[in-house]
Amino acid sequence: MSPTDTRIEHDLLGDREVPSAAYYGVHTLRAQENFPITGTPIGRYPELIRALAVIKAAAAEANHALGLLPEAKTRAIVAACDEIRAGALHDQFVVDVIQGGAGTSTNMNANEVIANRALELMGHARGDYRFLHPNEDVNMGQSTNDVYPSALRLAAYNGVMTLIEAMAVLQGAFEDKAAEFADVLKMGRTQLQDAVPMTLGQEFSTYATMLAEDEERLFEAAQLMREINLGATAIGTGINAHPDYAATVRARLAELSGIAVITAPNLIEATQDCGAFVQLSGVLKRVAVKLSKTCNDLRLLSSGPRAGFGEINLPAMQAGSSIMPGKVNPVIPEVVNQIAYEVIGNDLTITFAAEGGQLQLNAFEPVIAYSLFKSLAHLTQGCRTLAERCVVGITANRERLRESVAQSIGLATALNPYIGYRHASEVAVAAHESGKSVAQIVLERGLMSADKLAEVLRPEVLTAPRALAH
Amino acid sequence: MSPTDTRIEHDLLGDREVPSAAYYGVHTLRAQENFPITGTPIGRYPELIRALAVIKAAAAEANHALGLLPEAKTRAIVAACDEIRAGALHDQFVVDVIQGGAGTSTNMNANEVIANRALELMGHARGDYRFLHPNEDVNMGQSTNDVYPSALRLAAYNGVMTLIEAMAVLQGAFEDKAAEFADVLKMGRTQLQDAVPMTLGQEFSTYATMLAEDEERLFEAAQLMREINLGATAIGTGINAHPDYAATVRARLAELSGIAVITAPNLIEATQDCGAFVQLSGVLKRVAVKLSKTCNDLRLLSSGPRAGFGEINLPAMQAGSSIMPGKVNPVIPEVVNQIAYEVIGNDLTITFAAEGGQLQLNAFEPVIAYSLFKSLAHLTQGCRTLAERCVVGITANRERLRESVAQSIGLATALNPYIGYRHASEVAVAAHESGKSVAQIVLERGLMSADKLAEVLRPEVLTAPRALAH
Amino acid sequence: MSPTDTRIEHDLLGDREVPSAAYYGVHTLRAQENFPITGTPIGRYPELIRALAVIKAAAAEANHALGLLPEAKTRAIVAACDEIRAGALHDQFVVDVIQGGAGTSTNMNANEVIANRALELMGHARGDYRFLHPNEDVNMGQSTNDVYPSALRLAAYNGVMTLIEAMAVLQGAFEDKAAEFADVLKMGRTQLQDAVPMTLGQEFSTYATMLAEDEERLFEAAQLMREINLGATAIGTGINAHPDYAATVRARLAELSGIAVITAPNLIEATQDCGAFVQLSGVLKRVAVKLSKTCNDLRLLSSGPRAGFGEINLPAMQAGSSIMPGKVNPVIPEVVNQIAYEVIGNDLTITFAAEGGQLQLNAFEPVIAYSLFKSLAHLTQGCRTLAERCVVGITANRERLRESVAQSIGLATALNPYIGYRHASEVAVAAHESGKSVAQIVLERGLMSADKLAEVLRPEVLTAPRALAH
Amino acid sequence: MSPTDTRIEHDLLGDREVPSAAYYGVHTLRAQENFPITGTPIGRYPELIRALAVIKAAAAEANHALGLLPEAKTRAIVAACDEIRAGALHDQFVVDVIQGGAGTSTNMNANEVIANRALELMGHARGDYRFLHPNEDVNMGQSTNDVYPSALRLAAYNGVMTLIEAMAVLQGAFEDKAAEFADVLKMGRTQLQDAVPMTLGQEFSTYATMLAEDEERLFEAAQLMREINLGATAIGTGINAHPDYAATVRARLAELSGIAVITAPNLIEATQDCGAFVQLSGVLKRVAVKLSKTCNDLRLLSSGPRAGFGEINLPAMQAGSSIMPGKVNPVIPEVVNQIAYEVIGNDLTITFAAEGGQLQLNAFEPVIAYSLFKSLAHLTQGCRTLAERCVVGITANRERLRESVAQSIGLATALNPYIGYRHASEVAVAAHESGKSVAQIVLERGLMSADKLAEVLRPEVLTAPRALAH
Repeated sequence: MSPTDTRIEHDLLGDREVPSAAYYGVHTLRAQENFPITGTPIGRYPELIRALAVIKAAAAEANHALGLLPEAKTRAIVAACDEIRAGALHDQFVVDVIQGGAGTSTNMNANEVIANRALELMGHARGDYRFLHPNEDVNMGQSTNDVYPSALRLAAYNGVMTLIEAMAVLQGAFEDKAAEFADVLKMGRTQLQDAVPMTLGQEFSTYATMLAEDEERLFEAAQLMREINLGATAIGTGINAHPDYAATVRARLAELSGIAVITAPNLIEATQDCGAFVQLSGVLKRVAVKLSKTCNDLRLLSSGPRAGFGEINLPAMQAGSSIMPGKVNPVIPEVVNQIAYEVIGNDLTITFAAEGGQLQLNAFEPVIAYSLFKSLAHLTQGCRTLAERCVVGITANRERLRESVAQSIGLATALNPYIGYRHASEVAVAAHESGKSVAQIVLERGLMSADKLAEVLRPEVLTAPRALAH
Repeated sequence: MSPTDTRIEHDLLGDREVPSAAYYGVHTLRAQENFPITGTPIGRYPELIRALAVIKAAAAEANHALGLLPEAKTRAIVAACDEIRAGALHDQFVVDVIQGGAGTSTNMNANEVIANRALELMGHARGDYRFLHPNEDVNMGQSTNDVYPSALRLAAYNGVMTLIEAMAVLQGAFEDKAAEFADVLKMGRTQLQDAVPMTLGQEFSTYATMLAEDEERLFEAAQLMREINLGATAIGTGINAHPDYAATVRARLAELSGIAVITAPNLIEATQDCGAFVQLSGVLKRVAVKLSKTCNDLRLLSSGPRAGFGEINLPAMQAGSSIMPGKVNPVIPEVVNQIAYEVIGNDLTITFAAEGGQLQLNAFEPVIAYSLFKSLAHLTQGCRTLAERCVVGITANRERLRESVAQSIGLATALNPYIGYRHASEVAVAAHESGKSVAQIVLERGLMSADKLAEVLRPEVLTAPRALAH
Repeated sequence: MSPTDTRIEHDLLGDREVPSAAYYGVHTLRAQENFPITGTPIGRYPELIRALAVIKAAAAEANHALGLLPEAKTRAIVAACDEIRAGALHDQFVVDVIQGGAGTSTNMNANEVIANRALELMGHARGDYRFLHPNEDVNMGQSTNDVYPSALRLAAYNGVMTLIEAMAVLQGAFEDKAAEFADVLKMGRTQLQDAVPMTLGQEFSTYATMLAEDEERLFEAAQLMREINLGATAIGTGINAHPDYAATVRARLAELSGIAVITAPNLIEATQDCGAFVQLSGVLKRVAVKLSKTCNDLRLLSSGPRAGFGEINLPAMQAGSSIMPGKVNPVIPEVVNQIAYEVIGNDLTITFAAEGGQLQLNAFEPVIAYSLFKSLAHLTQGCRTLAERCVVGITANRERLRESVAQSIGLATALNPYIGYRHASEVAVAAHESGKSVAQIVLERGLMSADKLAEVLRPEVLTAPRALAH
Repeated sequence: MSPTDTRIEHDLLGDREVPSAAYYGVHTLRAQENFPITGTPIGRYPELIRALAVIKAAAAEANHALGLLPEAKTRAIVAACDEIRAGALHDQFVVDVIQGGAGTSTNMNANEVIANRALELMGHARGDYRFLHPNEDVNMGQSTNDVYPSALRLAAYNGVMTLIEAMAVLQGAFEDKAAEFADVLKMGRTQLQDAVPMTLGQEFSTYATMLAEDEERLFEAAQLMREINLGATAIGTGINAHPDYAATVRARLAELSGIAVITAPNLIEATQDCGAFVQLSGVLKRVAVKLSKTCNDLRLLSSGPRAGFGEINLPAMQAGSSIMPGKVNPVIPEVVNQIAYEVIGNDLTITFAAEGGQLQLNAFEPVIAYSLFKSLAHLTQGCRTLAERCVVGITANRERLRESVAQSIGLATALNPYIGYRHASEVAVAAHESGKSVAQIVLERGLMSADKLAEVLRPEVLTAPRALAH
């Protein structure tokens, strides 16, 4: 079989030569030509390809159980799907990630690759669809409009789980630092102005807590992905599907995929609805916003080394400048910021696509999938990179931090309960104007005794609620 | 007391005349001058004002219980708060909804109004803060940084509940129409192309289901609003708060507000975090997206009256055109579309503001609040308006719908299981080209018997899954 | 005429009581009831009301010149419009800013108010439309679909000019500071890390330059607003308009408004197109982005006072905290940041609304107008506030800045041309690790003579390109 | 040289093995490891690589002209750059498109590849930087902070020109159809409701006009890209650059690139400013919005074939459904809609990245570049695809269109000037309720003579302004 050999396939538009070596067929070929947009084929998203394969396998088994698909065809289809799930033939999924047709080309790409591989396994030639047909057998009881969204949901579910693992790694890295810095006293800041003391450990613990909460929210949003609409066929009425098909395929799919999928109660609604994708993307946006805020903080705290906050040091990962020797930049937080911005942009794309759905179908699910999978993949990489190439290597400038508290005007806050808000304000202003410390001013003015003042300004007293020491 | 009478108040910047009639004080006045942005005062959001008042009342009672605030002051503060909760003095909340200072001006506006009303109740003059002080008494154990976000959350919680009620009204209106149209056969459409039959009742039931799901998601997101950070004070370390204050004020607040508020486990994280607002806004965006899609559908289905889909009629609410006589436009769905667009824009504002938070505080919560409250209020009005001024009056063009099914090429889909996808394709193409019906072509070509065909094309068979009639 | 007196008016939906005191009529009344969304009437946007009035006056004069509208009616209409342009009757523009109907209700509100005021001027009773009719006379040769977008454009044009004035004030404030700080040497920063020296004057000059460029971009975008579609009537075909109407009304409008309006070459395109609004909003977004960046910088540079950058001081405008005495926060930059976030959100609303246009009209122009006018008004207020309440009062911490340069590791960059990037890197690292200055290390290692080093590190040499001093 | 051979290179972090076969060096290698985000290397954007090469060539020639770079080195660098401009070595540009470090890794990747290729051309081994150094020679007088933004601008400029060409193709396709359909009468629609007549040619001409206007706006925005900041070096002060370098390199670059680049008047501002990217992206968003609107219209007008508008037929490009035989979907407009949604999302990413810039640099230009280049490339492909695979093949259903006008209620508008708005309204309502035509009602009621009516309803009269035929 030379690379220029072809076979003839037929569709609505007529006959067409397909490369003999191709597992895909005429529908895929036309789609490949129709959508020369990004140059990125769907095969670049392995979770999606595996999800299509497991659904096709489950459908074949369901149809067999219902007496609609013969044993031999079923076995061949399932075997082909198993190969794909194991990673084979992903290079045969060639249609562009941004495609018209509401996913039909993706579904047909899967039908054709599976059919041709199954034909081979049955001892037939590729393209000899008399023995096994992409539409009539592989797609039996199905429509793009139930297979495609269900595949997206499975792939998204798995993608979220992978992301949560990466977030947990990052959370762990922050927790380790929180413990390491538990005794490092520093000034907290509100509105970028010196506020009141805290520990650097408390500061890092917030990043861990934020991640933990986001993981919970993501886990909840992922549960919405377990709702599938297999059995809906074209618009949700289930036309051409056996009455027991929906229940049967759901059970098989749950078993094969290991995910407790459920069938949507209103299949017509489920077939047209993209609300769950909008919700999931909204939670990813939340994750992005908070990761970005965390990276902004890391960049601020490590600003300097001399004319900045200079509180912490990020590990040097590469030379920072082509012109400024010795400069080290916060390149890892910066890349995570940019991932966050991309995720927020992707969310908007998803929002537009979801809003654009009309009547019984949303034709724009391909760009929803493309955007969602990018967000999941890049966030996953971002969390791991941030943990491994940045957070684990962070060190604190303990001296500088300690001194900043001693010199801080924010200590005046701690005096409120003893000398009142108005007097404390005057002390703060005087300290600021004179360059002296708050303690100096208080003692000079005789507002408190040295002992009392020392007691009130003890670190453990400053960084937690306390009963007033009268 | 003439309108030009003034009293003198003092702050960090010096002495300042305040109108004697004002319940607010110098801090509020400065803020009013500093932020001449929208012209909309915070008093326009009664939920927020009530939330501030109930928190101040709970704080006073907690401080009293902890032995920090005397009985008389406590009583006066609580009485003033009760009046505000009942609707009084909202016109005294005059600072602009878009304000700098992370909500400090809003909190001070509340402290001052409550203090001055309480002073009155105690028999003192407004501004005579020797007897009751806005900061030292009304704000005792508190900071803007715990009061303000907690108030936003209470107000948002109540706002969501109000929205859910309005959505339920709209859901009910769609359910009624779904029942009314349960027997109206029509063509379903995918990608705006005729697909397969369904009932108009099925179509309307999806709108009800979408709303029901969105209500659930909103309810979940609202639960995140129950987490407050009272006791955090300035940055979450609880400086200047009594160790038992957080627990005590939470209990009082739960009782007074009727909402089962809980104290955030990590108060430092909770004080700086806006994740819950991003999440809630993301769900509101989901609601907006789906409402907009629903309105797009209603406008499509009622397009015409002659050169359009012409499937349903929206009730005429006003003359449609200043130049085209007799024109009736879908003005109610159109206004809801626009609310949806605004909500999506508000979500972006909230996203930016949340991402902009730095270190121990997010200084941009005021614009988060402003955006969130607008989204909640406008969606509430939009749902009610859509239900009452549009959905309840929708009628169906039953004749036209029935005919469209009989003439549809999409019926060819129902033949797949009997004559195969390829033959069915040929029938479809022949029908399209000749202008004949699918049934005619099938019979002409002798592909199926007339009896069998009639059986296969029965409405109840077309709009639900079925075992194949062999 | 008591407040409960009514008159009867008639429309497509039948008879209806209208308050006798109202200048608006039945169409306005229905719209007011149909759109209870924001509570903000269109009368709150005086530029829009004035634009409607000047267009109606120009149309009346054009129709009169074409022999279609009698002298008496023309005079009365123009007189009513002049009153409105002078500020009268804005409270009669009561329909909600977010409304369905593509602006029909706004146009009818104008037609009715003008008709009734004109009737009064002619000595007739309000509502006695036999003598002057809102549709047939005031709206003659017009449609909402040409009047409304043309009015939005005029109002936007004027709004942009007002904004540009405010930006120029802010630009001037930055220029003054640039001059004041021209000799203040400081460290420049890239990626928040100390980079190479510059002057504070150079830093402030960039903010002025940014504004100057933005003013140019805005001015260009405003020119697109001069293209109007009067004469298009319903869809751009000019049905029911006199062939000379478009040219005549354009000339009158240019004269009355003082704006060199032009008639769109393709009126059908112009009637449905919102591209110019998207473009203008995109430029406003650019302005917002850069204002926000500027405010971020001001907040960073003034962070501290002790544990921050502490380079500049913003004037204190109000007490910063309800709990932290003496704290002064950057409240003015913060409010401008929030305006920027709102403008970015408004841009998204406009984007959605523009994309939602269908066929010969965009039904969502009301929310475009609402969003655009908010952006213009709030940016205008923000620029003025930032100039007057912040920038003019900024002071520099000259001592601290000078010292930061002397201590900076970034000085190593200046040595590249003399000792090479690699050696300079080693000096930088040594300085960082030892805490010594770059100059010290260079001299210790004998890499340059003291004289040469002093020459190379002179401020004027550091802050501008130079021929190498060999 | 086996694939596992390595050479040793050195940087700030120490020694490191680099594959001997690689033209890139240690800085590139570290960056590749640091940023494992998207898997897409910068080499995938050939415009960017070519822009880097032409800048490096211009810089070498400028430095040579200023007596700073010897002849031999200059020749070798320029020769290497020429090869890259001709398409060579793009596979050596391996750093990820989303990267931290403000583009430093991209600039160093270019420096290293050029240096190593130049070394080869000079007869030295790769990595033997004694003879030609990536930083000291290839990067002479430069910084990432002036090279990188300038390269982005050149690449964007060229990308816009390519897009404009594609848009012109699409514009031409619409113009051809406008001519073809010039005599096809149809109903225009506003708010999806039948309005007044127009021709299909007029409708298609609007799409051409929209594109023509967008091309103009894009061309204007592209001019902003001609402003470069070469000579700025690290922060715009020009440190380490010869005083004549900026002018010299600009002239060389203009000559080599064929683009009339200009040097920014304020180099400090230009180095930190991303306003021009925001502006350009805003215009791309405008293009996207209008393309999307156009595609929405095409999908609406071709809806059916029977239960829809059915006005035009899009050419069939592939089978539309895996379950519905014979179904043909508007797959090409759908893919363009999705590109538009992506572009709008990219614009938001760019907005966030631009807003995130701090002080003297924007560290997030890489994600701006990534988003911008995607938008340009995908829009270009989308316009060509839409022209070639859809618009050229569109046909009109002339019969159906003609009939829709005859039956239309919208014709009542044409009667306003003869029978008045109120009578015309009654005719419209009567026609709607009775199912009769407007003409029938008018004649039945004796409102106009048959002759006069025929005159008023002639197509050429209906679709253009006219003097009233009294």
